[in-house]
Amino acid sequence: MEEEQADLFSEIRDLVAASRTSDAVARLGGLHPADQADVIAELDDAARSALLPAIPRPDLARAIEYLPDQSRSSIIEEIPTADLAPLLDEVDDDITVDILHELGEERAGEVLREMKRAWAVSPLLGHSDETAGGHMTGAFIRLNGNWTVERTITYLRRVRPEADSAYYLYVVDGQGRLEGVVSLRDLIIAPPDAALSDIMLRDVRKVRDDMDQEEMARFVQRYDLVALPVVDANDRLVGVITVDDVLDIVEEEATEDILKLAGIGVKEHALSPIMDSARRRLPWLLVNMAVGLCSALIVTRFENTISKVAVLAALMPIIAGQGGNASIQTATIVVRGLALDEIDVGDLVRVLLKELMLGAVKGLLFGSVLAVVALAWSGNGTLAGVAAAAMFLNMLVASLGGVLIPMTLRYGLKVDPATAAGVFDTMLTDIMGFFIFLGLATIMLDRLT
Amino acid sequence: MEEEQADLFSEIRDLVAASRTSDAVARLGGLHPADQADVIAELDDAARSALLPAIPRPDLARAIEYLPDQSRSSIIEEIPTADLAPLLDEVDDDITVDILHELGEERAGEVLREMKRAWAVSPLLGHSDETAGGHMTGAFIRLNGNWTVERTITYLRRVRPEADSAYYLYVVDGQGRLEGVVSLRDLIIAPPDAALSDIMLRDVRKVRDDMDQEEMARFVQRYDLVALPVVDANDRLVGVITVDDVLDIVEEEATEDILKLAGIGVKEHALSPIMDSARRRLPWLLVNMAVGLCSALIVTRFENTISKVAVLAALMPIIAGQGGNASIQTATIVVRGLALDEIDVGDLVRVLLKELMLGAVKGLLFGSVLAVVALAWSGNGTLAGVAAAAMFLNMLVASLGGVLIPMTLRYGLKVDPATAAGVFDTMLTDIMGFFIFLGLATIMLDRLT
Repeated sequence: MEEEQADLFSEIRDLVAASRTSDAVARLGGLHPADQADVIAELDDAARSALLPAIPRPDLARAIEYLPDQSRSSIIEEIPTADLAPLLDEVDDDITVDILHELGEERAGEVLREMKRAWAVSPLLGHSDETAGGHMTGAFIRLNGNWTVERTITYLRRVRPEADSAYYLYVVDGQGRLEGVVSLRDLIIAPPDAALSDIMLRDVRKVRDDMDQEEMARFVQRYDLVALPVVDANDRLVGVITVDDVLDIVEEEATEDILKLAGIGVKEHALSPIMDSARRRLPWLLVNMAVGLCSALIVTRFENTISKVAVLAALMPIIAGQGGNASIQTATIVVRGLALDEIDVGDLVRVLLKELMLGAVKGLLFGSVLAVVALAWSGNGTLAGVAAAAMFLNMLVASLGGVLIPMTLRYGLKVDPATAAGVFDTMLTDIMGFFIFLGLATIMLDRLT
Repeated sequence: MEEEQADLFSEIRDLVAASRTSDAVARLGGLHPADQADVIAELDDAARSALLPAIPRPDLARAIEYLPDQSRSSIIEEIPTADLAPLLDEVDDDITVDILHELGEERAGEVLREMKRAWAVSPLLGHSDETAGGHMTGAFIRLNGNWTVERTITYLRRVRPEADSAYYLYVVDGQGRLEGVVSLRDLIIAPPDAALSDIMLRDVRKVRDDMDQEEMARFVQRYDLVALPVVDANDRLVGVITVDDVLDIVEEEATEDILKLAGIGVKEHALSPIMDSARRRLPWLLVNMAVGLCSALIVTRFENTISKVAVLAALMPIIAGQGGNASIQTATIVVRGLALDEIDVGDLVRVLLKELMLGAVKGLLFGSVLAVVALAWSGNGTLAGVAAAAMFLNMLVASLGGVLIPMTLRYGLKVDPATAAGVFDTMLTDIMGFFIFLGLATIMLDRLT
């Protein structure tokens, strides 16, 4: 299927290049909006400028909903303000809100003045992108509980709601407060003369508009919801979040965790502009370099020892490096456990004891291996003992750091534990690894030379 | 809300402890199944054994669907085979299949013989857990296209389908092949005498039962689906996947990527048994230790140089470590880009050029910083130059490795690029970092002492 699609893409590109715009639009029209969005995103600027004005407005609106963020901004910029308002009237509310945010206040104001759905979109604009309010749509069906099933069905036949805003009907009171929810399935199997208030589910899962998007996504996932009503501080129903947005959020948050653990600012992609990438990656590398210089400073304190027993320089990075890796493994497990709500601060002692025991096992294992190698290379039993002891102690340091650093970031400093856990863990195990190993070696120097 | 829940949890625990089982069951019954599952999972074995038999079967079936994998297995083990069959008859098909897989062939056979829904569950058992077939349910509504809207509504009123199997009705031909889909919304707004085949959507997004679960999840996400029909090799409709399973898969796959990048086997949790954790983490750490020993072996070749210029031992880990970090950043971006289908092998040259340029920028920056520090510490300009050159070259190595290693794992060796990218990247930058730096220093030794 992917090859077929690639063929179709190049066919459409060729048609545009040959100025057969209407043929290209006809071919495009046969595709799913997600695929149309792919074609549009991959066209070069000239072809896109030729094609866009020829696409029927409802099709273009659907395709825009599926465009990746980056291409969307550049495509929207090309559309004249006069054309943008009627187009956005047909785009999903939460996407329209994102677009208006990106346009800048002045142009957004101009567009909004021309939009027919400004009444629905304006109230959504005040919500931060990272909250439940920032992902909701105003296109949902709000009904009075006194309505009968029959009247409701007649109403639905008349308004013909869009497919994805119509899994559930929301029952509100005179002040717009959420009273209950009726699924289309309930509506179909209920007697025609029943009132909505008789068949509705009253114990509705709902969230506040200022709830963080990650918490909201976890809520949807926990209760297996398909649509989630959003209420304001006065319990008034202000919007609905659909599960497709939640899927995107879950993936976005997971990617954020991955990138943060590697010390990369969020929202970088493999094909991001180079200066963007540099801006996101350099800060952490610079911090890391500073950390490296601190540990190097410790090593320089022991220059005398090293110049006498140069093999220490060969063993030293293994002890520090092994500690760093073990610590990052532990921290990754703890960070992910916190993110998925598998553990919280109440599990601290349990997790710490487990990781310390695991650290001791690792220390015995790696310490023994290192002792054998050190003995083989130097023929010195004391050196073997010093190396093994340093490895063992640094594995305990790694376990302590791997658990305590993310926990402190989360519960002590109230920041995302993924952010800097890696830096602090490496710093700790590098500095302690060098210090313990070279310190012990200096104490035992007489027996090493 | 979380505190309220915690209070309720302890209340129920206390009731069970006081042998007031029926009161405990009554309190439990007021909770959402997801919350019931939490309570059940957190009870100790004795309390659980007292409570489980008292929970009404339909409630227990719902709660089981929400239990985390680990607690589910141990709870299922406690339930006698005679009780298990009628219970599983009420559990969602895809969960039942997971449970039967875990029971072992013999007991699964016994249970299956007693199950009323064996006809629906048995065909699902042949599918791997990691494919679309492994996540589908047999509980969906299959209708003939000749049926009128009115007849369909009458049918739905009679069978009262469960809420989550009834967003869509599937129209099949005499051989069970998927012809089209009708949403409840379409059914409600259509004239009562229309045939399903007149109002159904014919161009249905569907997948094959052997499609990999990650690909399937991406498909659902791409097309914003709420339910996805699954067909066999003969295009016969064999099941339906609901979006709540897809949410779990997206999160599971992201967690897998995170853990693999840190060199941890999949499916470890912060509270996994210690031997499980050891088994998952030690292999990679041992590989890493072997790599460390290889690089140490390189260092020992330069013992003579180091014993003359001990400050080399202090600067050496910075060059190797900075290379490792830069390389892992690049690899993380590439691995995530491949996982999210943002890049493929066709983007290799573009990504490589970008990363090499970025590597040169990093090399110039970090090389200069290191040169200043080396000059300050040693007062030796040649040492500063050697350190800067080695840092610059190792940053280019880091860029090359960060792009080429995941790409080779994915397209050359056809394995998951997250698996071992970190090990190989650190190995490359450690070995090359030590070799370049100490090699240059040895060549320049006369001017360093």
